[in-house]
Amino acid sequence: MYPKKLEDLIEVLKRFPGVGEKTAQRYAFQVLNWSNEEVNQMIDALENIKTGLKHCAICGNISEDDICEICKNRERDKSTICVVQSMKDVIAMERTQTYQGLYHVLNGAISTAKGIFPQDLNIDSLVNRCDDENIKEVIIATNPTVEGETTALYLAKLLDNKTCKVTRIAHGIPMGGHLDYADELTLIKAMEGRNELK
Amino acid sequence: MYPKKLEDLIEVLKRFPGVGEKTAQRYAFQVLNWSNEEVNQMIDALENIKTGLKHCAICGNISEDDICEICKNRERDKSTICVVQSMKDVIAMERTQTYQGLYHVLNGAISTAKGIFPQDLNIDSLVNRCDDENIKEVIIATNPTVEGETTALYLAKLLDNKTCKVTRIAHGIPMGGHLDYADELTLIKAMEGRNELK
Repeated sequence: MYPKKLEDLIEVLKRFPGVGEKTAQRYAFQVLNWSNEEVNQMIDALENIKTGLKHCAICGNISEDDICEICKNRERDKSTICVVQSMKDVIAMERTQTYQGLYHVLNGAISTAKGIFPQDLNIDSLVNRCDDENIKEVIIATNPTVEGETTALYLAKLLDNKTCKVTRIAHGIPMGGHLDYADELTLIKAMEGRNELK
Repeated sequence: MYPKKLEDLIEVLKRFPGVGEKTAQRYAFQVLNWSNEEVNQMIDALENIKTGLKHCAICGNISEDDICEICKNRERDKSTICVVQSMKDVIAMERTQTYQGLYHVLNGAISTAKGIFPQDLNIDSLVNRCDDENIKEVIIATNPTVEGETTALYLAKLLDNKTCKVTRIAHGIPMGGHLDYADELTLIKAMEGRNELK
Protein backbone atom coordinates (compact mmCIF):
# COMPACT_ATOMS: atom_id res chain seq x y z
CA MET A 1 0.00 0.00 0.00
CA TYR A 2 2.78 2.44 0.91
CA PRO A 3 5.62 3.30 -1.48
CA LYS A 4 8.38 0.66 -1.29
CA LYS A 5 10.87 2.98 0.41
CA LEU A 6 8.39 3.89 3.14
CA GLU A 7 7.57 0.19 3.62
CA ASP A 8 11.29 -0.53 4.03
CA LEU A 9 11.63 2.06 6.77
CA ILE A 10 8.50 0.79 8.56
CA GLU A 11 9.97 -2.72 8.40
CA VAL A 12 13.28 -1.77 10.06
CA LEU A 13 11.57 0.44 12.66
CA LYS A 14 9.67 -2.64 13.83
CA ARG A 15 12.98 -3.98 15.15
CA PHE A 16 12.77 -1.62 18.12
CA PRO A 17 11.42 -3.42 21.19
CA GLY A 18 7.64 -3.23 21.52
CA VAL A 19 7.16 -1.49 18.17
CA GLY A 20 4.50 -3.04 15.93
CA GLU A 21 3.09 -2.09 12.54
CA LYS A 22 1.04 0.91 13.72
CA THR A 23 3.79 2.48 15.84
CA ALA A 24 6.37 1.90 13.10
CA GLN A 25 4.02 3.69 10.67
CA ARG A 26 3.71 6.64 13.07
CA TYR A 27 7.50 6.81 13.41
CA ALA A 28 8.00 6.57 9.64
CA PHE A 29 5.55 9.41 9.00
CA GLN A 30 7.40 11.45 11.61
CA VAL A 31 10.64 10.81 9.70
CA LEU A 32 8.94 12.11 6.54
CA ASN A 33 8.35 15.41 8.35
CA TRP A 34 11.95 15.70 9.53
CA SER A 35 14.33 18.07 7.82
CA ASN A 36 17.36 16.67 5.99
CA GLU A 37 19.49 17.80 8.91
CA GLU A 38 17.41 15.89 11.44
CA VAL A 39 17.56 12.69 9.37
CA ASN A 40 21.32 13.11 9.02
CA GLN A 41 21.71 13.53 12.79
CA MET A 42 19.91 10.22 13.27
CA ILE A 43 22.10 8.54 10.64
CA ASP A 44 25.27 9.92 12.26
CA ALA A 45 24.16 8.78 15.72
CA LEU A 46 23.54 5.26 14.39
CA GLU A 47 26.90 5.15 12.61
CA ASN A 48 28.73 6.36 15.72
CA ILE A 49 27.19 3.60 17.80
CA LYS A 50 28.74 0.90 15.67
CA THR A 51 32.09 2.55 15.12
CA GLY A 52 32.60 4.40 18.38
CA LEU A 53 31.43 2.12 21.18
CA LYS A 54 33.04 -1.07 22.48
CA HIS A 55 33.03 -3.27 25.56
CA CYS A 56 35.54 -2.32 28.26
CA ALA A 57 38.41 -4.85 28.15
CA ILE A 58 38.27 -5.25 31.93
CA CYS A 59 34.64 -5.14 33.05
CA GLY A 60 32.65 -5.53 29.80
CA ASN A 61 30.76 -2.27 30.29
CA ILE A 62 30.01 -0.20 27.17
CA SER A 63 32.68 2.43 26.66
CA GLU A 64 34.13 4.81 24.10
CA ASP A 65 37.68 3.75 25.01
CA ASP A 66 39.29 0.33 25.49
CA ILE A 67 39.03 0.77 29.25
CA CYS A 68 35.89 2.39 30.70
CA GLU A 69 35.83 5.47 32.92
CA ILE A 70 35.10 3.49 36.08
CA CYS A 71 37.91 0.95 35.58
CA LYS A 72 40.27 3.83 34.76
CA ASN A 73 39.33 5.81 37.88
CA ARG A 74 42.17 5.52 40.41
CA GLU A 75 39.93 6.59 43.30
CA ARG A 76 37.61 3.57 43.09
CA ASP A 77 38.00 0.68 45.53
CA LYS A 78 39.74 -2.01 43.46
CA SER A 79 39.03 -4.79 45.98
CA THR A 80 35.29 -5.04 45.33
CA ILE A 81 33.49 -6.11 42.15
CA CYS A 82 29.75 -5.71 41.69
CA VAL A 83 28.44 -8.13 39.03
CA VAL A 84 25.44 -6.82 37.05
CA GLN A 85 23.53 -7.89 33.96
CA SER A 86 23.74 -4.72 31.91
CA MET A 87 25.08 -1.23 31.63
CA LYS A 88 21.70 0.11 32.76
CA ASP A 89 22.30 -1.55 36.13
CA VAL A 90 25.69 0.17 36.42
CA ILE A 91 23.97 3.51 35.84
CA ALA A 92 21.30 2.68 38.44
CA MET A 93 23.95 1.73 40.97
CA GLU A 94 26.05 4.82 40.22
CA ARG A 95 23.02 7.03 40.84
CA THR A 96 23.10 5.97 44.50
CA GLN A 97 26.51 7.66 44.78
CA THR A 98 27.48 5.26 47.56
CA TYR A 99 29.12 2.28 45.88
CA GLN A 100 32.82 2.95 45.34
CA GLY A 101 34.02 -0.38 43.96
CA LEU A 102 34.33 -1.72 40.42
CA TYR A 103 31.77 -3.46 38.22
CA HIS A 104 31.57 -6.49 36.02
CA VAL A 105 28.90 -6.40 33.31
CA LEU A 106 27.73 -9.84 32.11
CA ASN A 107 25.77 -8.40 29.18
CA GLY A 108 22.81 -10.67 29.84
CA ALA A 109 21.72 -13.53 32.08
CA ILE A 110 21.56 -17.29 31.68
CA SER A 111 18.25 -18.25 30.05
CA THR A 112 17.68 -21.66 28.57
CA ALA A 113 14.38 -20.41 27.15
CA LYS A 114 16.13 -17.68 25.15
CA GLY A 115 19.11 -19.93 24.38
CA ILE A 116 21.55 -17.83 26.42
CA PHE A 117 24.17 -20.06 28.06
CA PRO A 118 27.13 -19.20 30.35
CA GLN A 119 29.55 -19.18 27.40
CA ASP A 120 27.47 -16.42 25.75
CA LEU A 121 28.03 -14.12 28.74
CA ASN A 122 31.05 -12.17 29.93
CA ILE A 123 31.82 -14.73 32.65
CA ASP A 124 35.31 -16.04 31.80
CA SER A 125 36.92 -12.67 32.37
CA LEU A 126 35.17 -12.41 35.76
CA VAL A 127 36.78 -15.69 36.83
CA ASN A 128 40.15 -14.37 35.70
CA ARG A 129 39.63 -11.13 37.61
CA CYS A 130 38.86 -13.09 40.80
CA ASP A 131 42.22 -14.88 40.54
CA ASP A 132 43.78 -11.57 41.53
CA GLU A 133 44.46 -11.77 45.26
CA ASN A 134 43.56 -8.13 45.77
CA ILE A 135 39.86 -8.84 45.10
CA LYS A 136 38.22 -9.21 48.51
CA GLU A 137 34.54 -9.35 47.64
CA VAL A 138 32.34 -10.11 44.63
CA ILE A 139 28.80 -8.77 45.04
CA ILE A 140 26.37 -10.54 42.71
CA ALA A 141 23.71 -7.98 41.78
CA THR A 142 21.84 -9.74 38.97
CA ASN A 143 18.08 -9.14 38.91
CA PRO A 144 15.92 -11.25 41.26
CA THR A 145 14.18 -12.89 38.26
CA VAL A 146 14.37 -16.53 37.16
CA GLU A 147 17.25 -15.71 34.78
CA GLY A 148 19.07 -13.48 37.25
CA GLU A 149 18.79 -15.99 40.12
CA THR A 150 20.00 -18.82 37.88
CA THR A 151 22.98 -16.71 36.89
CA ALA A 152 23.68 -15.80 40.52
CA LEU A 153 23.67 -19.46 41.60
CA TYR A 154 25.87 -20.41 38.66
CA LEU A 155 28.40 -17.70 39.50
CA ALA A 156 28.38 -18.58 43.22
CA LYS A 157 29.29 -22.17 42.36
CA LEU A 158 31.92 -21.08 39.83
CA LEU A 159 33.65 -18.78 42.33
CA ASP A 160 33.36 -21.25 45.20
CA ASN A 161 37.10 -22.13 45.24
CA LYS A 162 38.33 -18.55 45.02
CA THR A 163 39.72 -16.75 48.04
CA CYS A 164 37.36 -13.76 47.66
CA LYS A 165 34.05 -13.43 49.50
CA VAL A 166 30.97 -13.87 47.24
CA THR A 167 27.82 -12.04 48.35
CA ARG A 168 24.33 -11.44 46.93
CA ILE A 169 22.42 -8.14 47.24
CA ALA A 170 19.51 -8.21 49.70
CA HIS A 171 15.94 -8.87 48.56
CA GLY A 172 12.98 -7.56 50.53
CA ILE A 173 10.31 -4.90 50.73
CA PRO A 174 11.38 -1.87 48.66
CA MET A 175 11.70 1.40 50.60
CA GLY A 176 8.41 3.29 50.56
CA GLY A 177 6.60 0.05 49.72
CA HIS A 178 3.72 -1.53 51.59
CA LEU A 179 3.67 -5.05 53.02
CA ASP A 180 0.17 -5.77 51.79
CA TYR A 181 1.19 -5.00 48.22
CA ALA A 182 4.30 -7.20 48.33
CA ASP A 183 4.12 -10.65 46.74
CA GLU A 184 4.71 -13.80 48.83
CA LEU A 185 8.23 -14.43 47.53
CA THR A 186 9.36 -10.91 48.39
CA LEU A 187 7.90 -11.26 51.89
CA ILE A 188 9.63 -14.63 52.38
CA LYS A 189 12.93 -13.07 51.28
CA ALA A 190 12.34 -10.10 53.57
CA MET A 191 11.76 -12.42 56.54
CA GLU A 192 14.75 -14.59 55.70
CA GLY A 193 17.03 -11.59 55.38
CA ARG A 194 15.89 -9.90 58.61
CA ASN A 195 18.52 -8.10 60.65
CA GLU A 196 18.86 -7.57 64.38
CA LEU A 197 17.87 -4.08 65.45
CA LYS A 198 19.78 -4.06 68.77
CA MET B 1 26.00 8.95 32.78
CA TYR B 2 26.08 7.11 29.44
CA PRO B 3 28.96 7.44 26.97
CA LYS B 4 28.52 10.55 24.80
CA LYS B 5 27.76 8.58 21.63
CA LEU B 6 25.03 6.60 23.33
CA GLU B 7 23.58 9.82 24.78
CA ASP B 8 23.51 11.30 21.27
CA LEU B 9 21.51 8.37 19.93
CA ILE B 10 19.08 8.49 22.88
CA GLU B 11 18.60 12.19 22.19
CA VAL B 12 17.68 11.75 18.51
CA LEU B 13 15.46 8.73 19.25
CA LYS B 14 13.36 10.99 21.50
CA ARG B 15 12.21 12.76 18.32
CA PHE B 16 9.88 9.87 17.52
CA PRO B 17 6.30 10.66 18.62
CA GLY B 18 5.53 9.53 22.17
CA VAL B 19 9.11 8.43 22.89
CA GLY B 20 10.55 9.73 26.17
CA GLU B 21 13.85 9.17 27.94
CA LYS B 22 13.14 5.60 29.10
CA THR B 23 11.83 4.33 25.76
CA ALA B 24 14.68 6.01 23.89
CA GLN B 25 17.13 4.25 26.21
CA ARG B 26 15.47 0.90 25.50
CA TYR B 27 15.69 1.55 21.76
CA ALA B 28 19.34 2.65 22.01
CA PHE B 29 20.28 -0.50 23.91
CA GLN B 30 18.52 -2.53 21.26
CA VAL B 31 20.62 -0.78 18.61
CA LEU B 32 23.75 -1.79 20.56
CA ASN B 33 22.71 -5.41 20.15
CA TRP B 34 22.11 -5.09 16.41
CA SER B 35 24.63 -6.45 13.95
CA ASN B 36 26.46 -4.04 11.65
CA GLU B 37 24.22 -5.18 8.83
CA GLU B 38 21.05 -4.36 10.76
CA VAL B 39 22.30 -0.87 11.64
CA ASN B 40 23.23 -0.31 8.00
CA GLN B 41 19.76 -1.37 6.85
CA MET B 42 18.28 1.25 9.17
CA ILE B 43 20.70 3.89 7.88
CA ASP B 44 19.89 2.99 4.26
CA ALA B 45 16.15 3.13 4.92
CA LEU B 46 16.51 6.59 6.46
CA GLU B 47 18.65 7.83 3.58
CA ASN B 48 16.19 6.49 1.01
CA ILE B 49 13.32 8.34 2.65
CA LYS B 50 14.96 11.71 2.09
CA THR B 51 16.35 11.03 -1.37
CA GLY B 52 13.69 8.74 -2.82
CA LEU B 53 10.32 10.10 -1.74
CA LYS B 54 8.53 13.26 -2.86
CA HIS B 55 5.05 14.75 -2.95
CA CYS B 56 2.99 13.91 -6.06
CA ALA B 57 2.89 17.04 -8.26
CA ILE B 58 -0.87 16.64 -8.75
CA CYS B 59 -2.40 15.43 -5.49
CA GLY B 60 0.36 15.96 -2.90
CA ASN B 61 0.43 12.30 -1.83
CA ILE B 62 3.82 10.78 -0.97
CA SER B 63 5.26 9.01 -3.98
CA GLU B 64 8.48 7.60 -5.41
CA ASP B 65 7.83 9.29 -8.75
CA ASP B 66 6.79 12.83 -9.68
CA ILE B 67 3.22 11.62 -10.21
CA CYS B 68 1.80 9.04 -7.80
CA GLU B 69 0.37 5.65 -8.80
CA ILE B 70 -3.23 6.75 -8.25
CA CYS B 71 -2.98 9.94 -10.35
CA LYS B 72 -1.20 7.93 -13.06
CA ASN B 73 -3.87 5.22 -13.12
CA ARG B 74 -6.02 5.68 -16.26
CA GLU B 75 -8.85 3.57 -14.86
CA ARG B 76 -9.65 5.92 -11.97
CA ASP B 77 -12.62 8.25 -12.19
CA LYS B 78 -11.02 11.64 -12.92
CA SER B 79 -14.19 13.61 -12.14
CA THR B 80 -14.11 13.09 -8.36
CA ILE B 81 -11.54 14.31 -5.84
CA CYS B 82 -11.51 13.12 -2.24
CA VAL B 83 -9.70 15.62 0.00
CA VAL B 84 -7.89 14.03 2.97
CA GLN B 85 -5.41 15.21 5.60
CA SER B 86 -2.67 12.64 5.12
CA MET B 87 -1.41 9.70 3.14
CA LYS B 88 -2.63 7.40 5.92
CA ASP B 89 -6.19 8.45 5.08
CA VAL B 90 -5.61 7.58 1.42
CA ILE B 91 -4.50 4.11 2.48
CA ALA B 92 -7.55 3.75 4.75
CA MET B 93 -9.87 4.79 1.92
CA GLU B 94 -8.14 2.51 -0.59
CA ARG B 95 -8.64 -0.43 1.76
CA THR B 96 -12.40 -0.13 1.24
CA GLN B 97 -11.80 -0.97 -2.45
CA THR B 98 -14.93 0.98 -3.40
CA TYR B 99 -13.76 4.55 -4.05
CA GLN B 100 -12.60 4.89 -7.64
CA GLY B 101 -11.90 8.63 -7.85
CA LEU B 102 -8.76 10.67 -7.24
CA TYR B 103 -7.39 12.15 -4.02
CA HIS B 104 -5.99 15.40 -2.80
CA VAL B 105 -3.71 15.20 0.24
CA LEU B 106 -3.54 18.41 2.29
CA ASN B 107 -0.63 17.17 4.43
CA GLY B 108 -2.18 18.48 7.61
CA ALA B 109 -5.14 20.50 8.84
CA ILE B 110 -5.64 24.11 9.84
CA SER B 111 -4.73 24.54 13.50
CA THR B 112 -4.18 27.95 15.03
CA ALA B 113 -2.96 26.23 18.21
CA LYS B 114 -0.17 24.45 16.33
CA GLY B 115 0.45 27.44 14.07
CA ILE B 116 -0.70 25.65 10.91
CA PHE B 117 -2.45 28.08 8.55
CA PRO B 118 -4.07 27.52 5.12
CA GLN B 119 -0.91 28.66 3.34
CA ASP B 120 1.04 25.85 5.07
CA LEU B 121 -1.22 23.23 3.51
CA ASN B 122 -1.51 21.86 -0.01
CA ILE B 123 -4.63 23.95 -0.72
CA ASP B 124 -3.64 26.21 -3.66
CA SER B 125 -3.19 23.27 -6.01
CA LEU B 126 -6.63 21.94 -4.97
CA VAL B 127 -8.21 25.23 -6.06
CA ASN B 128 -6.37 25.01 -9.37
CA ARG B 129 -7.51 21.42 -9.87
CA CYS B 130 -11.15 22.49 -9.32
CA ASP B 131 -10.88 25.04 -12.14
CA ASP B 132 -10.84 22.08 -14.50
CA GLU B 133 -14.41 21.68 -15.79
CA ASN B 134 -14.17 17.89 -15.77
CA ILE B 135 -14.18 17.85 -11.97
CA LYS B 136 -17.76 17.15 -10.91
CA GLU B 137 -17.45 16.56 -7.18
CA VAL B 138 -15.03 17.36 -4.36
CA ILE B 139 -15.59 15.14 -1.31
CA ILE B 140 -14.08 16.69 1.81
CA ALA B 141 -12.94 13.81 4.01
CA THR B 142 -10.88 15.57 6.68
CA ASN B 143 -11.19 14.12 10.18
CA PRO B 144 -14.24 15.15 12.27
CA THR B 145 -11.97 16.87 14.81
CA VAL B 146 -11.71 20.59 15.57
CA GLU B 147 -8.84 20.97 13.09
CA GLY B 148 -10.46 18.81 10.42
CA GLU B 149 -13.83 20.57 10.69
CA THR B 150 -12.18 23.99 10.52
CA THR B 151 -10.35 22.89 7.39
CA ALA B 152 -13.53 21.48 5.87
CA LEU B 153 -15.42 24.75 6.44
CA TYR B 154 -12.50 26.75 5.05
CA LEU B 155 -12.37 24.60 1.92
CA ALA B 156 -16.14 24.72 1.43
CA LYS B 157 -16.03 28.52 1.46
CA LEU B 158 -13.01 28.61 -0.82
CA LEU B 159 -14.63 26.36 -3.43
CA ASP B 160 -18.02 28.06 -3.17
CA ASN B 161 -17.78 29.81 -6.56
CA LYS B 162 -16.56 26.71 -8.45
CA THR B 163 -18.87 24.75 -10.72
CA CYS B 164 -18.12 21.43 -9.00
CA LYS B 165 -20.26 19.97 -6.21
CA VAL B 166 -18.60 20.09 -2.75
CA THR B 167 -19.66 17.37 -0.30
CA ARG B 168 -18.62 16.24 3.17
CA ILE B 169 -18.40 12.58 4.28
CA ALA B 170 -21.19 11.47 6.67
CA HIS B 171 -20.73 11.49 10.43
CA GLY B 172 -22.72 9.16 12.65
CA ILE B 173 -22.69 5.94 14.62
CA PRO B 174 -19.87 3.71 13.33
CA MET B 175 -20.92 0.31 11.99
CA GLY B 176 -20.91 -2.29 14.78
CA GLY B 177 -21.09 0.54 17.35
CA HIS B 178 -23.67 0.99 20.09
CA LEU B 179 -25.88 4.05 20.57
CA ASP B 180 -25.34 4.11 24.33
CA TYR B 181 -21.57 4.32 23.85
CA ALA B 182 -21.74 7.14 21.30
CA ASP B 183 -21.01 10.68 22.47
CA GLU B 184 -23.65 13.41 22.17
CA LEU B 185 -22.06 15.11 19.17
CA THR B 186 -21.93 11.88 17.18
CA LEU B 187 -25.59 11.20 18.01
CA ILE B 188 -26.60 14.72 16.97
CA LYS B 189 -24.72 14.24 13.67
CA ALA B 190 -26.34 10.83 13.20
CA MET B 191 -29.81 12.34 13.67
CA GLU B 192 -29.09 15.30 11.42
CA GLY B 193 -27.79 13.04 8.68
CA ARG B 194 -30.67 10.56 8.80
CA ASN B 195 -31.84 9.06 5.51
CA GLU B 196 -35.27 7.93 4.38
CA LEU B 197 -35.68 4.17 4.39
CA LYS B 198 -38.57 4.00 1.94
